[in-house]
Amino acid sequence: MSSGKILVAQGGGPTAVINQSLVGVVLEARRFREVTRVYGARHGVRGVVNEDFLDLTQETSHNLELVAGTPAAALGSTRDKPDLAYCRAMFEVLRAHQIEHFFNIGGNDSADTTRIVDDEARQAGYPLRCIHIPKTIDNDLVGNDHTPGFPSAARFVAQAFAGANLDNAALPGVYVGVVMGRHAGFLTAASALGKKFPDDGPHLIYVPERIFELGRFLADVKAVHERHGRCVIAVSEGIHDASGQSVVEQLAKDLERDAHGNVQLSGTGALADLLCDQIRDKLKIKRVRGDTFGYLQRSFVGCVSDVDQREAREVGEKAVQFALWGDRSGSVAIKRTGFYSADYELVPLDAVAGKTRTMEDEFITASGTDVTDAFRLYLRPLLGSGMPDAYRLRGARVAKLRG
Amino acid sequence: MSSGKILVAQGGGPTAVINQSLVGVVLEARRFREVTRVYGARHGVRGVVNEDFLDLTQETSHNLELVAGTPAAALGSTRDKPDLAYCRAMFEVLRAHQIEHFFNIGGNDSADTTRIVDDEARQAGYPLRCIHIPKTIDNDLVGNDHTPGFPSAARFVAQAFAGANLDNAALPGVYVGVVMGRHAGFLTAASALGKKFPDDGPHLIYVPERIFELGRFLADVKAVHERHGRCVIAVSEGIHDASGQSVVEQLAKDLERDAHGNVQLSGTGALADLLCDQIRDKLKIKRVRGDTFGYLQRSFVGCVSDVDQREAREVGEKAVQFALWGDRSGSVAIKRTGFYSADYELVPLDAVAGKTRTMEDEFITASGTDVTDAFRLYLRPLLGSGMPDAYRLRGARVAKLRG
Repeated sequence: MSSGKILVAQGGGPTAVINQSLVGVVLEARRFREVTRVYGARHGVRGVVNEDFLDLTQETSHNLELVAGTPAAALGSTRDKPDLAYCRAMFEVLRAHQIEHFFNIGGNDSADTTRIVDDEARQAGYPLRCIHIPKTIDNDLVGNDHTPGFPSAARFVAQAFAGANLDNAALPGVYVGVVMGRHAGFLTAASALGKKFPDDGPHLIYVPERIFELGRFLADVKAVHERHGRCVIAVSEGIHDASGQSVVEQLAKDLERDAHGNVQLSGTGALADLLCDQIRDKLKIKRVRGDTFGYLQRSFVGCVSDVDQREAREVGEKAVQFALWGDRSGSVAIKRTGFYSADYELVPLDAVAGKTRTMEDEFITASGTDVTDAFRLYLRPLLGSGMPDAYRLRGARVAKLRG
Repeated sequence: MSSGKILVAQGGGPTAVINQSLVGVVLEARRFREVTRVYGARHGVRGVVNEDFLDLTQETSHNLELVAGTPAAALGSTRDKPDLAYCRAMFEVLRAHQIEHFFNIGGNDSADTTRIVDDEARQAGYPLRCIHIPKTIDNDLVGNDHTPGFPSAARFVAQAFAGANLDNAALPGVYVGVVMGRHAGFLTAASALGKKFPDDGPHLIYVPERIFELGRFLADVKAVHERHGRCVIAVSEGIHDASGQSVVEQLAKDLERDAHGNVQLSGTGALADLLCDQIRDKLKIKRVRGDTFGYLQRSFVGCVSDVDQREAREVGEKAVQFALWGDRSGSVAIKRTGFYSADYELVPLDAVAGKTRTMEDEFITASGTDVTDAFRLYLRPLLGSGMPDAYRLRGARVAKLRG
């Protein structure tokens, strides 16, 4: 006899559409007669341990729809990574509440958390089904064509560079924009999607999939600046040298690491400032500006891909269907089935958990500083409808009357 | 006998709507029978000196409409500030081309440039009419209710802080967002327009109109963090101590100044990083993040106020009407005539040139760290239609079953 109680949680960095997945779970679950209650854990797995639940069954469907369109994580998120003791504490709470389905929305760290909880449940003989629902702006989950949250962040980055390029053309100089992405360069590469004319920036793109050499970087910038009189550069926060040490680690004095052992790369303008200093000092270029896109790229209100919204909603809905109609735990994965169409599969948790996808070689040019048409073809449909476009004067020159 | 030739130029920092003003001038001028040619100077006054003109009469009106909707400066901009020799060089070019109307779109520096050119023309006995068309995201032109470009940048800042607030609520800590604005805090104050619920951030707002004391700042942050478990802070890049020295100047080693003698405050993450370090070190708060909004706030493609677009177009149109039907040089000023409605006047160039408006006292609370309802009432209609809204779960708590 099932209790009919399900629990949903959100983990990791917020995105523009993670609440779509949450609402997808809640509204779809409420359509099943056997579901009696839908609980939400506040601040992810920490809310489970702390028995800090909201009864989402009491939310109006109208308000849930409005929350779905709101960025960030409506339940709150966490960076906690459960160990064995943490998981046992979770079980005691889940058992007390007779919760039998656990939906965890997050990236590969959250998938790993979901896998550990699932393992612990099985070992403890507790009848818990665990479904991981994909979410990450980094697009670094294996087995997925792409991940919910990435398309909207990619759209922000493309629109930001389209604007930065126009700004840089109006007041020429060198512009460095630092984009999120610890190991995967997908989001940085998205900067190329704002390009229209051959002389548009970003002229150079640096992703963590390629080794970063300062000398070569400066030579690249010099060449572009000599050619166009300006240079727009997209740089991933995760760029590193041949030894694997990140460029920002080389200069940051006080490193902050989270519970997963990850170095804190966001929330500081250090990398952009370092690179700008190098360009100013070594290349003697006067007007050099750096921006670190920071949290804007994942939580700006009002820049979202409608394709991303729709898919994020669907992975939540499908998670409930897989859990209630199926007989196994797993991770929902997005598969591309047309240009453009997507469908969803349930893959084993250990196929996704803790693994990191990086950019495929076919997406990066031989130079290592640009993306290929294959990448443009891959990303464009994900950005959704209504992408703003930039136009320029055709510019008939007036003949000079004076020497 | 008039030559019927007019010239338009864009100066200073690009905005989301400066091309609306450009296109307003061009399309309106082409309606006047006496106008034979509309030239555009590339990169502002520098394009005049260099005799670097485009014949905008040859642009299609369709493409001009598309350019109008594109951010940044389609003609290119400049930071040059003409002196006497520079102005004489300009005259020689203007005289050679028989240009009789000069429209200069820009901020108070550009207004000053326009004034000098106008003075020089009169002293030289050259029949030149000079019209300054307002533009600045800083909203710091005197005699204007507000300036074109500010509403769209304010909308970006409001949307950015609405998202940063949601992100910070999901993963609590301290967030510092640094906003452009050398002397005027209008744009930083716009961060308050993204607030909806009483506990929403930004919880603290620091504008250059009030003296910044580090000790008081830290006490403010501590109090908010203790109350809400988190703190979102909006800081103007122009904040300074009692002696007038900017906080960023206190720590920046290599200062870059432009031709106007202004210190370079943008294009570096130094201020955000400094403030974050202080909060981390002095208040022992672990999760502290800083973003510098940088160039995104003035040139992001896809975040614009329709009210701003409309008015930027109209100041361009009115400039042509004032010049062709009137008999004097001047600066076009926006006046508020209803809630909400605007109209335009031509004011003397020296009433605007080189002067800086700062936030009125009635817009800042007694605490000095928040805006008043008067400011909200002032700004809200300028942000335009379709502002995104943030929603939250109503959050019925589930009773704990365990101690």
